[in-house]
Amino acid sequence: MARFYKKRSANKGLPPGSLVFIGTKKVDTPTVEYVSYDQENFTESEFLRVENVPKNDPEKRQWYNITGLDNEEFMAHIQERLNIHPLAMEDVMNTGQRAKFEEFEDFAFTTLKMLQFDSKASRVITEQVSFVIKGTTLITFQEEPGDTFDAVRKRLRNPKSNIRKLGPDYLAYALMDSIVDNYVYLIEGMGEKVDDLELKILEDPDEDALQQINMYKRELHFILKVVRPVRELTHNLIRTESEFIDKKKTLAFYKDLDDLITHVIESAEAYRQVLTDYLQVYHTNVSAKMNDIMKVLTIFSAIFIPLSFFAGVYGTNFDYFPELHFKYSYFIFWGVIVTMAGGMLYYFKRKGWF
Amino acid sequence: MARFYKKRSANKGLPPGSLVFIGTKKVDTPTVEYVSYDQENFTESEFLRVENVPKNDPEKRQWYNITGLDNEEFMAHIQERLNIHPLAMEDVMNTGQRAKFEEFEDFAFTTLKMLQFDSKASRVITEQVSFVIKGTTLITFQEEPGDTFDAVRKRLRNPKSNIRKLGPDYLAYALMDSIVDNYVYLIEGMGEKVDDLELKILEDPDEDALQQINMYKRELHFILKVVRPVRELTHNLIRTESEFIDKKKTLAFYKDLDDLITHVIESAEAYRQVLTDYLQVYHTNVSAKMNDIMKVLTIFSAIFIPLSFFAGVYGTNFDYFPELHFKYSYFIFWGVIVTMAGGMLYYFKRKGWF
Amino acid sequence: MARFYKKRSANKGLPPGSLVFIGTKKVDTPTVEYVSYDQENFTESEFLRVENVPKNDPEKRQWYNITGLDNEEFMAHIQERLNIHPLAMEDVMNTGQRAKFEEFEDFAFTTLKMLQFDSKASRVITEQVSFVIKGTTLITFQEEPGDTFDAVRKRLRNPKSNIRKLGPDYLAYALMDSIVDNYVYLIEGMGEKVDDLELKILEDPDEDALQQINMYKRELHFILKVVRPVRELTHNLIRTESEFIDKKKTLAFYKDLDDLITHVIESAEAYRQVLTDYLQVYHTNVSAKMNDIMKVLTIFSAIFIPLSFFAGVYGTNFDYFPELHFKYSYFIFWGVIVTMAGGMLYYFKRKGWF
Amino acid sequence: MARFYKKRSANKGLPPGSLVFIGTKKVDTPTVEYVSYDQENFTESEFLRVENVPKNDPEKRQWYNITGLDNEEFMAHIQERLNIHPLAMEDVMNTGQRAKFEEFEDFAFTTLKMLQFDSKASRVITEQVSFVIKGTTLITFQEEPGDTFDAVRKRLRNPKSNIRKLGPDYLAYALMDSIVDNYVYLIEGMGEKVDDLELKILEDPDEDALQQINMYKRELHFILKVVRPVRELTHNLIRTESEFIDKKKTLAFYKDLDDLITHVIESAEAYRQVLTDYLQVYHTNVSAKMNDIMKVLTIFSAIFIPLSFFAGVYGTNFDYFPELHFKYSYFIFWGVIVTMAGGMLYYFKRKGWF
Amino acid sequence: MARFYKKRSANKGLPPGSLVFIGTKKVDTPTVEYVSYDQENFTESEFLRVENVPKNDPEKRQWYNITGLDNEEFMAHIQERLNIHPLAMEDVMNTGQRAKFEEFEDFAFTTLKMLQFDSKASRVITEQVSFVIKGTTLITFQEEPGDTFDAVRKRLRNPKSNIRKLGPDYLAYALMDSIVDNYVYLIEGMGEKVDDLELKILEDPDEDALQQINMYKRELHFILKVVRPVRELTHNLIRTESEFIDKKKTLAFYKDLDDLITHVIESAEAYRQVLTDYLQVYHTNVSAKMNDIMKVLTIFSAIFIPLSFFAGVYGTNFDYFPELHFKYSYFIFWGVIVTMAGGMLYYFKRKGWF
Ligand SMILES: [Mg+2]
Ligand SMILES: [Mg+2]
Ligand SMILES: [Mg+2]
Ligand SMILES: [Mg+2]
Ligand SMILES: [Mg+2]
Ligand SMILES: [Mg+2]
Ligand SMILES: [Mg+2]
Ligand SMILES: [Mg+2]
Ligand SMILES: [Mg+2]
Ligand SMILES: [Mg+2]
Ligand SMILES: [Mg+2]
Ligand SMILES: [Mg+2]
Ligand SMILES: [Mg+2]
Ligand SMILES: [Mg+2]
Ligand SMILES: [Mg+2]
Ligand SMILES: [Mg+2]
Ligand SMILES: [Mg+2]
Ligand SMILES: [Mg+2]
Ligand SMILES: [Mg+2]
Ligand SMILES: [Mg+2]
Ligand SMILES: [Mg+2]
Ligand SMILES: [Mg+2]
Ligand SMILES: [Mg+2]
Ligand SMILES: [Mg+2]
Ligand SMILES: [Mg+2]
Ligand SMILES: [Mg+2]
Ligand SMILES: [Mg+2]
Ligand SMILES: [Mg+2]
Ligand SMILES: [Mg+2]
Ligand SMILES: [Mg+2]
Ligand SMILES: [Mg+2]
Repeated sequence: MARFYKKRSANKGLPPGSLVFIGTKKVDTPTVEYVSYDQENFTESEFLRVENVPKNDPEKRQWYNITGLDNEEFMAHIQERLNIHPLAMEDVMNTGQRAKFEEFEDFAFTTLKMLQFDSKASRVITEQVSFVIKGTTLITFQEEPGDTFDAVRKRLRNPKSNIRKLGPDYLAYALMDSIVDNYVYLIEGMGEKVDDLELKILEDPDEDALQQINMYKRELHFILKVVRPVRELTHNLIRTESEFIDKKKTLAFYKDLDDLITHVIESAEAYRQVLTDYLQVYHTNVSAKMNDIMKVLTIFSAIFIPLSFFAGVYGTNFDYFPELHFKYSYFIFWGVIVTMAGGMLYYFKRKGWF
Repeated sequence: MARFYKKRSANKGLPPGSLVFIGTKKVDTPTVEYVSYDQENFTESEFLRVENVPKNDPEKRQWYNITGLDNEEFMAHIQERLNIHPLAMEDVMNTGQRAKFEEFEDFAFTTLKMLQFDSKASRVITEQVSFVIKGTTLITFQEEPGDTFDAVRKRLRNPKSNIRKLGPDYLAYALMDSIVDNYVYLIEGMGEKVDDLELKILEDPDEDALQQINMYKRELHFILKVVRPVRELTHNLIRTESEFIDKKKTLAFYKDLDDLITHVIESAEAYRQVLTDYLQVYHTNVSAKMNDIMKVLTIFSAIFIPLSFFAGVYGTNFDYFPELHFKYSYFIFWGVIVTMAGGMLYYFKRKGWF
Repeated sequence: MARFYKKRSANKGLPPGSLVFIGTKKVDTPTVEYVSYDQENFTESEFLRVENVPKNDPEKRQWYNITGLDNEEFMAHIQERLNIHPLAMEDVMNTGQRAKFEEFEDFAFTTLKMLQFDSKASRVITEQVSFVIKGTTLITFQEEPGDTFDAVRKRLRNPKSNIRKLGPDYLAYALMDSIVDNYVYLIEGMGEKVDDLELKILEDPDEDALQQINMYKRELHFILKVVRPVRELTHNLIRTESEFIDKKKTLAFYKDLDDLITHVIESAEAYRQVLTDYLQVYHTNVSAKMNDIMKVLTIFSAIFIPLSFFAGVYGTNFDYFPELHFKYSYFIFWGVIVTMAGGMLYYFKRKGWF
Repeated sequence: MARFYKKRSANKGLPPGSLVFIGTKKVDTPTVEYVSYDQENFTESEFLRVENVPKNDPEKRQWYNITGLDNEEFMAHIQERLNIHPLAMEDVMNTGQRAKFEEFEDFAFTTLKMLQFDSKASRVITEQVSFVIKGTTLITFQEEPGDTFDAVRKRLRNPKSNIRKLGPDYLAYALMDSIVDNYVYLIEGMGEKVDDLELKILEDPDEDALQQINMYKRELHFILKVVRPVRELTHNLIRTESEFIDKKKTLAFYKDLDDLITHVIESAEAYRQVLTDYLQVYHTNVSAKMNDIMKVLTIFSAIFIPLSFFAGVYGTNFDYFPELHFKYSYFIFWGVIVTMAGGMLYYFKRKGWF
Repeated sequence: MARFYKKRSANKGLPPGSLVFIGTKKVDTPTVEYVSYDQENFTESEFLRVENVPKNDPEKRQWYNITGLDNEEFMAHIQERLNIHPLAMEDVMNTGQRAKFEEFEDFAFTTLKMLQFDSKASRVITEQVSFVIKGTTLITFQEEPGDTFDAVRKRLRNPKSNIRKLGPDYLAYALMDSIVDNYVYLIEGMGEKVDDLELKILEDPDEDALQQINMYKRELHFILKVVRPVRELTHNLIRTESEFIDKKKTLAFYKDLDDLITHVIESAEAYRQVLTDYLQVYHTNVSAKMNDIMKVLTIFSAIFIPLSFFAGVYGTNFDYFPELHFKYSYFIFWGVIVTMAGGMLYYFKRKGWF
């Protein structure tokens, strides 16, 4: 499958707002994790059937975390029960979505990707996470079980944590922050590997190093394509004039998130530039090594090919060949040969070839 | 013919608003497809003669789809009957038009290209489609039969579809969306091929791979030249202050289209970058392979050229040549030869040449 | 002479507004073409002496077309008679001027270049054209006879043409449009040649192709340097708030011109990028071809150099050389030789060298 | 450790505002340097225990300089005693912070890096310095003892200096200016080395030069990553509308600082470009040198390989070989040989090979 | 000394506004050239002692031209006598200043560089010139005697010149214009040399050409670093809202200057791009030339190495060697040899190698 695309062509020609899953099927049974919380109370439960999921109640702080997007019937039930706009729902189910923050009349929609390095395949893999903030309710969608949210869940269970005091905008921040923290972790890991490559490139530039450069460059390029729109997202978020983000209590945290994602992007770009520089150095180094090889070849050839010719001359069978019959011919021959070889060596030495 | 141009010079020196067809003749008989629709009623018909085409009626929702632009007389009739501004009509007939959205006093004009990959010629081919929105009427122009509109036609026949409830701005959106969806499909296809090239470049970089890189780079470059102005088009569309787009009902869809075209452009750019990286890796790989070839040559030459010289010496015909007459000369000779060859091999081995 | 400059240093140190011709002398006798026109009336005449030229009359539509800028005395007369601001006049006579649109209190000044490809010298040559719009009068200046204005002159003689109905702003548009149309024509021609180069680069990359790439790159670079400021010019023109351009009747045409010049620039940039890609492919192809040459050399050398050594051994003249005296030695020798050669060939075959 | 990162992942999953040290432990005993000053009075003292540090007094000009960030308990005490916002405190302790200026309701926060070239490791090392301006108090934080502040300390002890007359915004400026002055010093030093490299690259491009180019490019890249955000910082500072900077008395100095940091960035970019150019010249030079080597090889081979063949022919043992028996054969043979060699030499000479 | 820096570190740690000379000492005796002028009156004198210099008189048009900046005592006197702000004075004396236009309450400050090509050192050298406009007075500072101002001095002596009618803003313009005119002259000269290089690069790319490319690239890079801020300067100047520039009478001239500096920058960038293209062509050309060398080598080797082997075979001394004894062996041998050589030649010919 094409790397920079989920098979978007699956919904080619359909009307907008069609609930078509675009992506790779990953889950058999979609689930809904439900949390209702305020500073004193806390309820946590999980549902397999949509009809059992509590309706969203404008008076209560609620978090619905839906896992598994590929069951179109299930998703249609969710949309109906939680009353989500079709265009937002379409974006939730299209896992090839570009990260964005969009405001509608009565809800805010955000989508971005969780990233993970699959070291077997030497590939970064993505999982799309979408956020719907609607009144006091937060709804999140992810493709499959497993996420970066566990630390947040833990803080949520603690009645003294900030997260229990503030609204769904803060909870959404905490979850996005955990995703972006994971970007940091990912790039830190790749960066260490990239830094280790440098010595290898300078001293022993072999094909394996070339493949490594190429692989990291490709993956950083992919990460940047996924992560750059996240900065647009946070930029739009902190400039929003709507009520979805509490300007007094939550905005400062989103600014902190904006700093962090800027840091992520600059670091990924820095490593990409480093790799581009490596490739140039590698290439130049390969050329320089070829010069060394050529010098060895040329020195041997330039010395021995003429000498062989002279030996060949004295191996000819001309009847009349006076030198052959002088007594010291053979020794003179060696004298000339050694002088010539020495002269050549001196010449190459002076040229700085060895 | 020059790739990035239709023969624009055809109307060199003519006054603006001249109806001159610029492009390649593709159709013998131009036709007009006519649809009149609202939520209850639906009429569909096709005309070959302009005088039979119903005039546009400000009370009715109407779609005129004109196919075939090269018959200048026919186009003049159309212009007159549907009352289209000469500058807009000139742009319709100039198929080398840059995509754009332009507002006039009483109508809005949009033009862009449909794209298709001609796998025989390994070239992307284009067909220009123009849109005129005027009151409740939509007029579209295309170069030849065959388009991306069939799914829209089907939805149009369905009395319950959104498209029947909304005005010509929504119909225009649906048609443009089908065109941009097709861009996605096109780049998805090319992307898969590009991804497949990677292994080949790293392992067996032959001339065929080079031609493939070049071909995809060229075609993506062409696509980007055609598609980048479409983003300007949608950006202008969603920022328009005029009445041609219904801010309440249709604008959100055009924003969705703007997202999609951004995705298309970023993906095409991503693949173009990938190909540039491939080319660098290819080049470096070719240099590295040459090193291998040179090593083989140098090892053989550096070992055997000196040995040949020694054989040559003992093949000379000097009368006085003491070594030739010793009993074990020949065996000593072989001993020296084998030692020298071994020494050279050891030297090259230590240099890491094999 | 330096390509990107007319000898501007000619007026080094002079006060601003000095009438110094900067450029190459091209004309012996400067002339003034004079047209006075409205919808009914039309007069056309040519003058060699400034004192005979009708003064500009604020009531009449007039076009003065001055050809030949290098006669400083003549130009001073023109300036006086037609009452032109010294800074504008200085720019008219400095043919190394960057294209621009500038508004003064009572007139608007525009300058740009006509372009032509001199195929003998493989160079684009320029001729500067300047426009002064002042009330109902248009004054144009060019360096030498011959221009792109003939089609406009013809339309001007036709009493029914648009050009007769509208003011000097429209006439100026028509003339600039003819200049920009000529840019299109020029780049179309170069584009066809560039497209033809591709096959050559991929299949037979010789020195001639390299020179062609270089020449087209250089010329497109030059064209872009000349043409990019023209877009700034049209951008400023369509954003002007002054009265020199009729917002109702003429502005739409200048917008069309702005589209066209954008198209010109993007196409020139596209071809320049194509040539940069060609150069990279060319270079990579040259490296790949060298690999082929090296393989031929290495195969021959690696097979025959060792064999020559063996022949050399059996050509030595050692007294005691047992193998020479065996009956089948010579045939065994050939057997060994053929086996060795076959082994080497098999080795290179397996390496994929041929 | 990854170069472009401090181990940020250390606080992965923690709530924002957590006081976690991110960086390398550098100090055993954190200290607080305390200065209280106005035009007449000046007190200076150092504390190891937070409870002894005077509280900040809104009536007095005070500077707290805290050295050593890795003791989390100590830092928590500092935060409490000096009453610092948790988000600011978190940034202080995360030494991988991007430089920035941020305004909170009652204080301004700034962070940037001191730079130093570690010539043993051929690496630039960083130390993070953060500034909190709060009323008449300035609090600074650094990672370890040793800084660029000594000249400022000296001026502070002088009762006539400007620094004694103005508020903590001016003191903060003076300290930041000392940091940025040090950037100048650092880049000056590297620049001299880079300039010295040029001759080496042009005349004797060896592997050592390649490593030097690579090292300086890498370090300048690193410096730029650290320093570019400092310009954003000063840009934001001089555009602030808050009261933290005295518009009348201090702003002009921050503008001067903004000039200086622009100069630093442009110089670092200039040297980076110079190094990129060097690398290209180096690579081209290596290729050109290889041509010279190949010419030597080819001249020797093309002359002597054919000659050896001829010698070989006259060394064959055919029974019937008429030329061998002519009297002057041997001399004719030499004549032919010398003529051929001369012909070849003349051919290569004419080709301009030597 | 580092190229892109004057030793700025000389004032490291000093308080802002310190009068420290940063640069190379060039002058022993600083001088003050004093001109007082209006339309009727004109006085001109030169002073070596500051106390003799007339004080600036708000009623009179005065020009003070100070030459020689390295005498710190002298400069302190000047500052005091002419009453100049310390921050401006510090910038005057720091000759590594970035060009800029800065407005203070009662004066405007401008600084930029004069450029000159030192053809012996193949380096562009700079001299910093600063302008202080204060009421009706203009003060200029330069590093050493000799400047581009002579033509302006001449116009100033002419009572009818514009310069005598207008204020110090116009005089400042005239002086800056003379500096920028000199940039034009400099780049014109380099451009001619660069244009001449093209043929050499295409036909005979030797090491000398490579050094030339490198030199011009380096110098243009340096010029651009110096000149780009001058455009910022003029942009700021023509947008200023203060009273230092007379909007009616002088502004148009500064706009003209802005045009000219834009032209300078674009030309320098154009030549830099041309040189980058040359370098690529050079490199490709070197690779192509190597192919030619390799072809010669390969043709000779591939023809004669096998032939030598065959000669070697017939030179072996096997007792039983039937072919040697056939009568026509020798002639058959030559026939085979010639056929083989011809076959090889035909093969290389068909490959297009010569
Ligand atoms: Mg769609
Ligand atoms: Mg969508
Ligand atoms: Mg995903
Ligand atoms: Mg930020
Ligand atoms: Mg780089
Ligand atoms: Mg190479
Ligand atoms: Mg036209
Ligand atoms: Mg048009
Ligand atoms: Mg088309
Ligand atoms: Mg977007
Ligand atoms: Mg790349
Ligand atoms: Mg390359
Ligand atoms: Mg001038
Ligand atoms: Mg001018
Ligand atoms: Mg010209
Ligand atoms: Mg446009
Ligand atoms: Mg490219
Ligand atoms: Mg190469
Ligand atoms: Mg965090
Ligand atoms: Mg933070
Ligand atoms: Mg640090
Ligand atoms: Mg930055
Ligand atoms: Mg600045
Ligand atoms: Mg680089
Ligand atoms: Mg460069
Ligand atoms: Mg190369
Ligand atoms: Mg300073
Ligand atoms: Mg300063
Ligand atoms: Mg200077
Ligand atoms: Mg300009
Ligand atoms: Mg280039």
